[in-house]
Amino acid sequence: MSGLLLDVAVQPSSVGPPVRAARYLSGGPQLPRADFQLRPVPSGFAPQEQEYQQALLLVVALAGLGLGLSLIFIAVYLIRFCCCRPPEPPGAKSPPPGGGCVTWSCIAALLVGCTGIGIGFYGNSETSDGVSQLSSALLHANHTLTAIDHLAHPCAQVLEMVERLDEAVRTELTTLEEVLTQRTELVAATRGARRQAEAVAQQLQGLAFWQGVPLSPVQVAEDVSFVEEYRWLAYVLLLLLELLVCLFTLLGLAKQSKWLVIVMTVMSLLVLVLSWGSMGLEAATAVGLSDFCSSPDTYILNLTREETGLGSDILNYYFLCNQAVSNPFQQRLTVSQRALANIHSQLQGLEREAVPQFPSAQKPLLSLEETLNVTEGNFHQLVALLHCRGLHKDYGAALRGLCEDALEGLLYLLLFSLLSAGALATALCSLPRAWALFPPRNPSASCSGSHLSEPFLHARLEPVPHLR
Amino acid sequence: MSGLLLDVAVQPSSVGPPVRAARYLSGGPQLPRADFQLRPVPSGFAPQEQEYQQALLLVVALAGLGLGLSLIFIAVYLIRFCCCRPPEPPGAKSPPPGGGCVTWSCIAALLVGCTGIGIGFYGNSETSDGVSQLSSALLHANHTLTAIDHLAHPCAQVLEMVERLDEAVRTELTTLEEVLTQRTELVAATRGARRQAEAVAQQLQGLAFWQGVPLSPVQVAEDVSFVEEYRWLAYVLLLLLELLVCLFTLLGLAKQSKWLVIVMTVMSLLVLVLSWGSMGLEAATAVGLSDFCSSPDTYILNLTREETGLGSDILNYYFLCNQAVSNPFQQRLTVSQRALANIHSQLQGLEREAVPQFPSAQKPLLSLEETLNVTEGNFHQLVALLHCRGLHKDYGAALRGLCEDALEGLLYLLLFSLLSAGALATALCSLPRAWALFPPRNPSASCSGSHLSEPFLHARLEPVPHLR
Repeated sequence: MSGLLLDVAVQPSSVGPPVRAARYLSGGPQLPRADFQLRPVPSGFAPQEQEYQQALLLVVALAGLGLGLSLIFIAVYLIRFCCCRPPEPPGAKSPPPGGGCVTWSCIAALLVGCTGIGIGFYGNSETSDGVSQLSSALLHANHTLTAIDHLAHPCAQVLEMVERLDEAVRTELTTLEEVLTQRTELVAATRGARRQAEAVAQQLQGLAFWQGVPLSPVQVAEDVSFVEEYRWLAYVLLLLLELLVCLFTLLGLAKQSKWLVIVMTVMSLLVLVLSWGSMGLEAATAVGLSDFCSSPDTYILNLTREETGLGSDILNYYFLCNQAVSNPFQQRLTVSQRALANIHSQLQGLEREAVPQFPSAQKPLLSLEETLNVTEGNFHQLVALLHCRGLHKDYGAALRGLCEDALEGLLYLLLFSLLSAGALATALCSLPRAWALFPPRNPSASCSGSHLSEPFLHARLEPVPHLR
Repeated sequence: MSGLLLDVAVQPSSVGPPVRAARYLSGGPQLPRADFQLRPVPSGFAPQEQEYQQALLLVVALAGLGLGLSLIFIAVYLIRFCCCRPPEPPGAKSPPPGGGCVTWSCIAALLVGCTGIGIGFYGNSETSDGVSQLSSALLHANHTLTAIDHLAHPCAQVLEMVERLDEAVRTELTTLEEVLTQRTELVAATRGARRQAEAVAQQLQGLAFWQGVPLSPVQVAEDVSFVEEYRWLAYVLLLLLELLVCLFTLLGLAKQSKWLVIVMTVMSLLVLVLSWGSMGLEAATAVGLSDFCSSPDTYILNLTREETGLGSDILNYYFLCNQAVSNPFQQRLTVSQRALANIHSQLQGLEREAVPQFPSAQKPLLSLEETLNVTEGNFHQLVALLHCRGLHKDYGAALRGLCEDALEGLLYLLLFSLLSAGALATALCSLPRAWALFPPRNPSASCSGSHLSEPFLHARLEPVPHLR
């Protein structure tokens, strides 16, 4: 005897390769957290709890502290440079020590800033990729859920077919009513088929578990995309602003244009503030996201249970989707399947018994069998839709988008903010010293279109011996 | 009467949002193609045909032509610069016109090159993402195919259960043999159940369509990953090499170190050749990939049919997966489902009839029903696995990886190659002119560690009036 009843629990896992979530922040949750009174806070993701919110706000506040410290440092450095310069003998031959160094450190800082900008563009696009993966997974899940509801429920499009079927059944019943006295068992069989059909319909209606659930994945996806769109745009603007500041500062240094360098110094200050601000937001988001990603299942399960009011068995089935969790629709599906098979054998019996005597019964019977075949096909589609594979894969894709791509992008953005904060602070320290070394405005030298050039700082250099 | 037989063809499409392939190269296939005799070649993807290969090789050859032209241009420019310089009066006060312009154009070219490098890193990572999406989709598809085979076929793990079942059936048969003379119909029912079970097993074995197919998605995924790993590494090395060349050239210009600039000029020439080479490869790959992505289904269908020998109905079902293509396993699944339901009703009948007379028949009957329930659960899983949704989604993900991410990355890499070829050609034109402007080696000025600086070209500048 070969393997019918044998195909049991063969497969260790039915859901594909596991989701590798949060591979980037394995050390993240171990960082100490504290609230405003600096009491330690557990690192589990609980955004609705006040002390967790305080812990995140404290991370933002740390960035504010960094901004304050760097501003104080810059101010002290510049004040010291302006007020405590050693008096310089007029017409001194040697340049002040480190005069060229100032310009070069400024250029190096701006180059580091440009590298940071490149990293920022990459991180921004990576985050955007991750979030769009999340929304497309949500849309796909919504598609599956809608399909389940539609398959399990009659909708307007099928009403015509319902009526045709009803009519077919009624015709057959009328035909059989005429021979009721002779063949009671045929009428009984027809009525049995109808009862089974009604039972199946009831069972199937119970499968549309998402019907009437107030949570719409489409809505969530749209909200996420909306926020992401503005976040993306804001970062692109910030990156472009910083790129322009870097390039125009370089241009100002190259053309030795004092006003351009002064304007760019002010802009650098603005961008420095923005960088520290974005760094605070990124750090808080990264900390929150890493907490979430270290054990997303529990949080998502609880949240979905609260939002949808669905039973734990259904949610566990879809969110965990392993052999340990049994299909909560198994019973209904099996009952429906058996009822469908019974209807089929009853219809076949009717065809065998009734058609030789009542040829007019053949047409409605054939039509009913055709419909039964199509229904069985749709039943298989329903089984496939209800199976946890599809929805769990969407869940995995959404998690991967959030916890791999988006988190990776966020860390790159954090690196960008760090680099640009450092670079801008260095530039802010050196720019005023650099422009102090510029020669006074000489229209004939610096405004001629043909040579942009005459690079930096030759003003204060000692005259060079002629080559030949 | 409500909706059992009504759930028919409700859903316009069962596969989720459609794959948006080749959104980047809508105009690609319209480019004229030609073979070595410059006869036009149809733009359909046909990598095994010689004239299509020639068309791609011609694209590579165009890059070679570009390299040749740019080398000739650089050589002509430099020869003209070296040999046709206007004689300069010794001790001339004015710098040669455009002297500073040379250095600045060199710096601008190197900055453009650095931008190109940033774009190249982005494109490389994007291509890598796309290809890894392709391989993970292949691995997931392989997982599904293996699961189908395992569920439809008994494997070693279930043999024990098979034996237990066989024994259970045998025990029951023996029990019933003892009452054969009294209740022939019970024996007949048992034998009927066994026949049905054997029929189901046969039907299920026919569902393992991937068994014995010589094509292994794992192998394809491994091959793709292997090639991609080396491609990625080669690009990273090329990008780093170019970055180092750019930075050291800038350093050489800043320190006015002639030997460094000369070495970097030679390196630039090398990187120029590499850039044009990579550009040729990228252009040919992008053209081929865009041809493939403009209508991937037909090519993949034909290729898979040749490689696997599977029927068109199965391949169409999985690759197209829309309402127009019916499930080729529908018939087998329906027959199996009906047989399972029949076995169930036969077992129930046996329980009703036999158990009151033969209480010892209850235990094997219950065990059989338990096993039947589990089998029906596995049957639903098999239905879900066989449905085209899962495999088609993997196919869509693989296509998206290849035709969106990988193609996008390839176009970015192409842009990188273009930018870097242009930047390096400009740098190669200006570097020899720039180093000709360097002052002769002056150890005390250029080797002192404390000031890296003394920026470019002050050697040939006119003496600047003192500021104060």
